[in-house]
Amino acid sequence: MDLLIKNGTIVTAIETYQADIAVSGGKIAAIGTDFNEQDFHDIVDARGKLVLPGAIDGHTHLALPFGGTISSDDYYAGTRSAACGGTTTVFDFVQQNPGERMLDAVKRRDALAAPDAAVDYSFHIGVGDVSTDELLDSMEEAVEYGIPSFKVYMVYDFGVDDGSFYKVLQRAKKIGALVGVHAENKDVNNLLVQQYLAEGKTSAWWHYMSKNELVEGEADVRAVNLAKMAEAPLYIVHLADKMGMDAVTEARRQGYPIFAETCPQYLHFTNEVYKRDRGRDFVCSPPMKNQESQNAIWDGIANGNITTIATDHCPFKQAEKDWGITKKDGTPGDFTTIPNGCAGVENMYPYVLAQAGAGRLTFNKAVQLCASNPAKLFGLSHRKGAVRVGLDADLVLYDPEKEFTITNEAMHGDTDHTIWEGVKLKGYPIATYSRGRLVFKDGEFLGRRGAGELIKCKKLSFHGPEL
Amino acid sequence: MDLLIKNGTIVTAIETYQADIAVSGGKIAAIGTDFNEQDFHDIVDARGKLVLPGAIDGHTHLALPFGGTISSDDYYAGTRSAACGGTTTVFDFVQQNPGERMLDAVKRRDALAAPDAAVDYSFHIGVGDVSTDELLDSMEEAVEYGIPSFKVYMVYDFGVDDGSFYKVLQRAKKIGALVGVHAENKDVNNLLVQQYLAEGKTSAWWHYMSKNELVEGEADVRAVNLAKMAEAPLYIVHLADKMGMDAVTEARRQGYPIFAETCPQYLHFTNEVYKRDRGRDFVCSPPMKNQESQNAIWDGIANGNITTIATDHCPFKQAEKDWGITKKDGTPGDFTTIPNGCAGVENMYPYVLAQAGAGRLTFNKAVQLCASNPAKLFGLSHRKGAVRVGLDADLVLYDPEKEFTITNEAMHGDTDHTIWEGVKLKGYPIATYSRGRLVFKDGEFLGRRGAGELIKCKKLSFHGPEL
Amino acid sequence: MDLLIKNGTIVTAIETYQADIAVSGGKIAAIGTDFNEQDFHDIVDARGKLVLPGAIDGHTHLALPFGGTISSDDYYAGTRSAACGGTTTVFDFVQQNPGERMLDAVKRRDALAAPDAAVDYSFHIGVGDVSTDELLDSMEEAVEYGIPSFKVYMVYDFGVDDGSFYKVLQRAKKIGALVGVHAENKDVNNLLVQQYLAEGKTSAWWHYMSKNELVEGEADVRAVNLAKMAEAPLYIVHLADKMGMDAVTEARRQGYPIFAETCPQYLHFTNEVYKRDRGRDFVCSPPMKNQESQNAIWDGIANGNITTIATDHCPFKQAEKDWGITKKDGTPGDFTTIPNGCAGVENMYPYVLAQAGAGRLTFNKAVQLCASNPAKLFGLSHRKGAVRVGLDADLVLYDPEKEFTITNEAMHGDTDHTIWEGVKLKGYPIATYSRGRLVFKDGEFLGRRGAGELIKCKKLSFHGPEL
Amino acid sequence: MDLLIKNGTIVTAIETYQADIAVSGGKIAAIGTDFNEQDFHDIVDARGKLVLPGAIDGHTHLALPFGGTISSDDYYAGTRSAACGGTTTVFDFVQQNPGERMLDAVKRRDALAAPDAAVDYSFHIGVGDVSTDELLDSMEEAVEYGIPSFKVYMVYDFGVDDGSFYKVLQRAKKIGALVGVHAENKDVNNLLVQQYLAEGKTSAWWHYMSKNELVEGEADVRAVNLAKMAEAPLYIVHLADKMGMDAVTEARRQGYPIFAETCPQYLHFTNEVYKRDRGRDFVCSPPMKNQESQNAIWDGIANGNITTIATDHCPFKQAEKDWGITKKDGTPGDFTTIPNGCAGVENMYPYVLAQAGAGRLTFNKAVQLCASNPAKLFGLSHRKGAVRVGLDADLVLYDPEKEFTITNEAMHGDTDHTIWEGVKLKGYPIATYSRGRLVFKDGEFLGRRGAGELIKCKKLSFHGPEL
Repeated sequence: MDLLIKNGTIVTAIETYQADIAVSGGKIAAIGTDFNEQDFHDIVDARGKLVLPGAIDGHTHLALPFGGTISSDDYYAGTRSAACGGTTTVFDFVQQNPGERMLDAVKRRDALAAPDAAVDYSFHIGVGDVSTDELLDSMEEAVEYGIPSFKVYMVYDFGVDDGSFYKVLQRAKKIGALVGVHAENKDVNNLLVQQYLAEGKTSAWWHYMSKNELVEGEADVRAVNLAKMAEAPLYIVHLADKMGMDAVTEARRQGYPIFAETCPQYLHFTNEVYKRDRGRDFVCSPPMKNQESQNAIWDGIANGNITTIATDHCPFKQAEKDWGITKKDGTPGDFTTIPNGCAGVENMYPYVLAQAGAGRLTFNKAVQLCASNPAKLFGLSHRKGAVRVGLDADLVLYDPEKEFTITNEAMHGDTDHTIWEGVKLKGYPIATYSRGRLVFKDGEFLGRRGAGELIKCKKLSFHGPEL
Repeated sequence: MDLLIKNGTIVTAIETYQADIAVSGGKIAAIGTDFNEQDFHDIVDARGKLVLPGAIDGHTHLALPFGGTISSDDYYAGTRSAACGGTTTVFDFVQQNPGERMLDAVKRRDALAAPDAAVDYSFHIGVGDVSTDELLDSMEEAVEYGIPSFKVYMVYDFGVDDGSFYKVLQRAKKIGALVGVHAENKDVNNLLVQQYLAEGKTSAWWHYMSKNELVEGEADVRAVNLAKMAEAPLYIVHLADKMGMDAVTEARRQGYPIFAETCPQYLHFTNEVYKRDRGRDFVCSPPMKNQESQNAIWDGIANGNITTIATDHCPFKQAEKDWGITKKDGTPGDFTTIPNGCAGVENMYPYVLAQAGAGRLTFNKAVQLCASNPAKLFGLSHRKGAVRVGLDADLVLYDPEKEFTITNEAMHGDTDHTIWEGVKLKGYPIATYSRGRLVFKDGEFLGRRGAGELIKCKKLSFHGPEL
Repeated sequence: MDLLIKNGTIVTAIETYQADIAVSGGKIAAIGTDFNEQDFHDIVDARGKLVLPGAIDGHTHLALPFGGTISSDDYYAGTRSAACGGTTTVFDFVQQNPGERMLDAVKRRDALAAPDAAVDYSFHIGVGDVSTDELLDSMEEAVEYGIPSFKVYMVYDFGVDDGSFYKVLQRAKKIGALVGVHAENKDVNNLLVQQYLAEGKTSAWWHYMSKNELVEGEADVRAVNLAKMAEAPLYIVHLADKMGMDAVTEARRQGYPIFAETCPQYLHFTNEVYKRDRGRDFVCSPPMKNQESQNAIWDGIANGNITTIATDHCPFKQAEKDWGITKKDGTPGDFTTIPNGCAGVENMYPYVLAQAGAGRLTFNKAVQLCASNPAKLFGLSHRKGAVRVGLDADLVLYDPEKEFTITNEAMHGDTDHTIWEGVKLKGYPIATYSRGRLVFKDGEFLGRRGAGELIKCKKLSFHGPEL
Repeated sequence: MDLLIKNGTIVTAIETYQADIAVSGGKIAAIGTDFNEQDFHDIVDARGKLVLPGAIDGHTHLALPFGGTISSDDYYAGTRSAACGGTTTVFDFVQQNPGERMLDAVKRRDALAAPDAAVDYSFHIGVGDVSTDELLDSMEEAVEYGIPSFKVYMVYDFGVDDGSFYKVLQRAKKIGALVGVHAENKDVNNLLVQQYLAEGKTSAWWHYMSKNELVEGEADVRAVNLAKMAEAPLYIVHLADKMGMDAVTEARRQGYPIFAETCPQYLHFTNEVYKRDRGRDFVCSPPMKNQESQNAIWDGIANGNITTIATDHCPFKQAEKDWGITKKDGTPGDFTTIPNGCAGVENMYPYVLAQAGAGRLTFNKAVQLCASNPAKLFGLSHRKGAVRVGLDADLVLYDPEKEFTITNEAMHGDTDHTIWEGVKLKGYPIATYSRGRLVFKDGEFLGRRGAGELIKCKKLSFHGPEL
């Protein structure tokens, strides 16, 4: 057999125990306590370390065209960075072009990703055009291919109206797909932008104000109500506000298959960041909210109503963030001319695990949120998300005692700053295996461009998975 | 003095007691127990009768152009009918034309109403166009003139998007106006219409299905959330579903100035009417909902979260309703080609009072819902809505023992059918006084076309009136 | 006629308007605007003044034996003080002795009250013994006599267990009586007392701690649940905590006839008073709670879930309060040896009205809480609680501009200190009429010992009054 | 190695997958896919079968003295029956005698259990006397010994008052113990019993009526509130009503460590059983409730607010149940003279798993409720409750296709009837292993009296386990 990881403490979604792991052919072949070491090509002693499933980042935007530029991490940089943070699968977004069949969109984008990806990956499809029956019907082809996940935007020009959203929910329910939603009230957002700019309010703070707690909250509530109407499962991405958290909590209590994702930036930062000198660096959508909302999201983690953590990784360089001051064309900029997004794919698992180390949640819960729940919800638990015999050997060795201070320099992506700069963590990944191959060790990326594979995902059952 | 109503039982919003009422110059001059009868020109013995304030119908559509025709009661027929049902003030709607200043719209419409109205009246302004600052600013002029009430439609082509709705709420709050809303989700409604018609579902039932409980409920919730965002008072007109009722109840519990109106047709009928042979006669928007929703509305009356009852009076003749079978142009019709609306202005007070007689609510509560609350909410309690010294002598004598069966023939409007046909009531108005003048007695209209005056209303304080 | 009060602004539970009031034979004979002044023996010009119904204090303990002494205001001192604060009716408590029939208890106590009372009064009966069917049956006799109101204590040695409480609720429902409850968890209270004393914690602060928010809240919740079980109306006296407020609010939303009283001391003071040097002076039960609870009670006033305000007037002199330091017998005292109670009967109406003047509630709401609601709930609205033709002329003239600083010296009772010392009010009563007789004017008591009458009250209908 | 279970489908609390299990020394030594069969003494082919962890029944009353007799299953009969239903650990109750130290009570009872038990077992301690500090202090000794679980009764003569309950909660929190509670309102229960008997209502139906939904619900709510006050974890045993379910759900949403157990009889039967001819056979406390309550409990299972399922196994023979007609002494009996309890220890796992087979819950959830959750909550997850390397090889082979009709004859206890008579199940256990030993196969008990061991349990962390 290829590899024995011995003496480690295995952490699953619900258990923590001592046992050894035998890896063969990229899979977990056995878990036991008394293996014959001669049977193994390679032996790693994980004494004092946690052995975790690799994380699954359900939300990244690699090589994303946005606001006249392109996000600074391409598929190689992004997945390299992921591997070095213990994330062994990323879900990126394909945005369907007008008139384009869903599966064509996937293949178009996969042509970019496949040669570059250093860890395994899959896609969600951003719905751009369901104006014809044919395009709506084309959802099913993508599901059959292994991409059963769609996303609608309630904001942005390329977003959809409530009718199309509802139509997508109706259809998704029939074909076993999941619908994610970026929830912000477009009309009110646009109105507030217009009012603030008219009043000369141009700084990053007003980005937050125009997408405040209620602007997101109203849309969260509406999305939940549309899903109830359509009797379809729903996944709210990057939930960041109390009102939405409350709506999700209540719908779940009533038995509706409503799921919510949040991101580390909403757990650690608040709208206070927009008061900083370079507040524009942190412009992302939805923006970080007030402390009350942050508390509500943490409560949602504690009481099980947050289902997943993902990053919305979408870095832009500072020169591009500066377009909020002076636009590309030299004219004065404002908060609407700043490309939206922050880096994070390398920080998610370390950050969440460090919170577990600090007692804010359990390590088991950290594994649930970052690995096993996304695996189940997105239909790849037959391959990923757990330390279990038969699954891909996507494993992370984690040293709970290692002290680490995040700096952009220590990260492995291609951008030039990070919102996480200076944040200190106790506990850090020391090794990452992707299908049994060592891709990260002691701060160094050891993987290979193009080694990642597209993971085909399974359909969602009506009520969603049991989590 | 002009008139003494003696020996009656006065019913106010909170009290029921024996006393005599002296009327002079169209006003209530005194209430007492020992008047000198010689001082009075006219004396009416109301022994065994209730003496009530005239009702205020906050929601009528007289002479309304809709779907290629015009509603069958003009200002004379509608107000005549009102008087004969104990309603002494009606609020009609002015729909602002694109580019038209708000007050101009009021005056345009008042030119129609003034010569015809048989009882006093006022207006709400349907917001059609706030695309420019000037038009938005024009709201204030109307408020100053005495028309401090606006309405937005979340459905219909002439409806507004969330941004405009929010803008109107923001402004209304500043200038002391109230914003009413017709809440149904336009996009989902349109989508369902399209889907049903594509499936050949053309009968009145599908009108209901395309505007079902959740289609209204989602919009109710959204309207409440927008009002919370804008920190403005809100008035939901013709509330007809449980989900909306729950949202209003919860918002009010939290202290928000959210008010709800319902209509007698939602209290007495359910969606079952759309299964009748001439179900198309009862097509109105929102449609009657299921029994659970009806129960919720009655609960809302019991626990004080329904603020007013009004009629949405808007009759069309059966020949026009038949356009749901064959359109005006001879081609096949469907539920979308039926003019929307039912008669009701003459039935509201008798129906609600008969429910009081039957013990479903108190007479005091009936007076609150139909008279004193609309007076306070719409800013005319300095003139109307109570039996109180100094107010207009708009009074109704009500015989709690009189048996009455509603028929279209017995009504005093101009239409040819009524949803209330055959409904039996115990208790009925026997006389109506408008500013001291007898306008209805024992089934006969005694008023005069043009005798009604436009009532100028006062601004709303921020939290709305105390009810 | 006897008296004309002219030019005043009449304030009722729901209206505020200008009119004149004619009084004859102790009753309000007429309200109008154009009386002939020659018809009146006495004329008072109330221009610039509010004319209010006299307040009804639903909760006083006059001449109450407690902890080895007797409360310092007897029926004369207490009702004299009441009159000088605009309160024209007080409800005192009769505590049933073991084996005593309910009506016998009333008559026993009335023998003390009748010769002394300066304003009208009535009683609630404190249930002491329902161990036999005969004693339980004796409730009805009291109801028929005109005392349809009972109270159970969930604390104190003379309190009752849940079974007896339930039995009283069952019976009350049958005979049209109302059951009030003093809700605190006796067992936990006793346990905490024992634990604190064992730890040497003897100051007034620990009185509060042993009767903290949850000790009251649990009992409030339990009382509500017992009332739901028995399907009986319930009145929670002196509600002082958020948890109870929430339970009442929710039960009322569900349509249960649950009513709550609070007291001015809970609206103005918090548990901070127990940190004062003479914190022992303010020991009362329930104690003042934290700020969150106070806010919740104010919210309950705003949203209509507090039905009445009363005082729990029960003063003890400072020498007696000092028994918390040194007991009567010279041994060391602690918080359990302090007689419980504070003065307040003269402060309620002035305090609440001053809050209305300051905009915290409306004057109408103040009248509801202090006059019309207790009148309806306790069954004396045929006599008291409103400015209405036919009712007793219990009237208060109130100068909204008068500045007044409360001092014990300025009060008209017999005690030697007040928790209200130094509190400044804008607005104060300048005259009080009891059945048309002037009993207070410009700071001076003008009434007469023994002039007050026992008011016989009417039964409660099942769902309680509409308020 | 001792045993290889191959080709089975392993079902854990969150996963279902194919793998083989190697057992050695009574423990699970390894889980893998490619074991060398020669290494094993015994090989079982589980193709087509589910391999589950043995169930843990957290609530049995073996050899319980009650109402003048003793429950009909002693420790041997009860554990034998358990083994034949796939339950490999039972928790029995020790009732502390007045004045007895907690650990002494455990040892006293263990002396009975140890010689008899056929599967492993542990205890909860029924609190009888905490009147002295010494007795209260004695809780800790039991916890240190490995019995960290206590139970209080809010009913019954041997139950405790709220003060003692609170004291036990306070202490339990300090020493890492869990407090279970039998929640019914004693006083109201007693009162209703007295009233019904006085009215000649003596049948089993009135047992239910005197312990109706609200009698249990009020106590559930109170128990939750006392736990909140004490800031202590709480475990409500045999929850059977909606009101309690709602209270638990809400408390958990707020983050409180409140846990609820229900029993199969509440999931399958309603109060309708008390209308049967031999309704008295089903008298247990709490009684089965109405359909609404049953639905609420099932909802609680679906939404995760029911933590465990246990049986409250406590059978009495029909001759004893007949004491409800004629007492032991020959005088007429009534519902209060029927020994309380039903058989069930052999039915729990088969019933719940069959519901999983029928799609009402997942097999994973069945394992959570019957095995992994009780293991975690009661502190024995280091030994029991999962199919995991290192744990006791307590395993059940389950044939999802096997049809089985429950009869008392087919059961393995000592009683003479069962409430489950005639209930048909699809799916049934075909083999049970206790620490690697086969104790049940194809309907036959193969275990040995006295083979069971007392399991020492670990303390509870403050917030309870993550489930």
